[in-house]
Amino acid sequence: MDLLKERIVKEGRVIGSSILKVDGFLNHQIDIQLLNEIGREFKNRFSDIKVDKILTIESSGIGLACITAQYFNVPVVFAKKALSLNLDKDVYVADVFSYTKNTGYNVFVSAKYLSKGENVLIIDDFLANGQAALGLINIIEQAGATAVGVGIVIEKGFQQGRNHIVEKGIRLESLAIIKSMEDNKVIFE
Amino acid sequence: MDLLKERIVKEGRVIGSSILKVDGFLNHQIDIQLLNEIGREFKNRFSDIKVDKILTIESSGIGLACITAQYFNVPVVFAKKALSLNLDKDVYVADVFSYTKNTGYNVFVSAKYLSKGENVLIIDDFLANGQAALGLINIIEQAGATAVGVGIVIEKGFQQGRNHIVEKGIRLESLAIIKSMEDNKVIFE
Repeated sequence: MDLLKERIVKEGRVIGSSILKVDGFLNHQIDIQLLNEIGREFKNRFSDIKVDKILTIESSGIGLACITAQYFNVPVVFAKKALSLNLDKDVYVADVFSYTKNTGYNVFVSAKYLSKGENVLIIDDFLANGQAALGLINIIEQAGATAVGVGIVIEKGFQQGRNHIVEKGIRLESLAIIKSMEDNKVIFE
Repeated sequence: MDLLKERIVKEGRVIGSSILKVDGFLNHQIDIQLLNEIGREFKNRFSDIKVDKILTIESSGIGLACITAQYFNVPVVFAKKALSLNLDKDVYVADVFSYTKNTGYNVFVSAKYLSKGENVLIIDDFLANGQAALGLINIIEQAGATAVGVGIVIEKGFQQGRNHIVEKGIRLESLAIIKSMEDNKVIFE
């Protein structure tokens, strides 16, 4: 997706060899027009699949998932990272390890919002080691639903996320795949 | 906004006299069609105001703000509740006290994403005591920008948020104002 890659090159900032900051258009300030192009592209990539629901994870996946959901005409469910007082007790829980933060955390989805037999498309901003996506897949499996695909905006192709997802037989579509980052430059596959 | 009020009556669940759960369509599972109607209504309510940017707060405001931003054709910025490694050091910070959780927390916005002279519309899901909105207004003031309005989906009219915002001379538009909640019933103003 050239429009996205151009924005990454122009506005993304590389820190070391593995951190890419895209806070200017995706993760803190959000360019809604770009998000619409991204949503349209996800619909193109998954146009042959029946999708009943989009699942993402708070916080940075939410805007992306909501805009994308308009193209699929389905509801969004976002997994929560903390069990609030207001969340039901009947929840699916998965443990996610964050390599960035070097710590594990739980994600929760209320059992009411994922049902047996539903086709669920996972949408998220980044794929690195795939731990968040695997956590969401685990939750979908707990619900007896099917993870029909994973749609990612930016994949760090030099990390292991793709392998983990593909090994589970789940289709992965990433709109920009980064081969390497060095000297403050992003090289796409 | 009748469509919204109908959903609150039908699907909202009242806990005690002050907690309303709308996880089925707004805060955990998100009904994108309803969100579009909400976004359209915010545009109607603020149609006479020049808006350069929409500001909200993670997590539950983000989807709402992104869908609404489509009607204003402006970017969204969401305040973060934790200062991540990936966030810039040059940030505006405000302290927010949560009556629900009985504790304070900081919200952060990178200085790059709010500029002097910008007209900023705050969009959020709930207004109760107004502490989150006041925190966002404080951040907008730090940036030298102007808070031109606050758009709220569900206002707890029996709490003090409205007074705090109106006292600052800022226009507040709430799509559903709750007068009271008792015996598991919501009474609108």
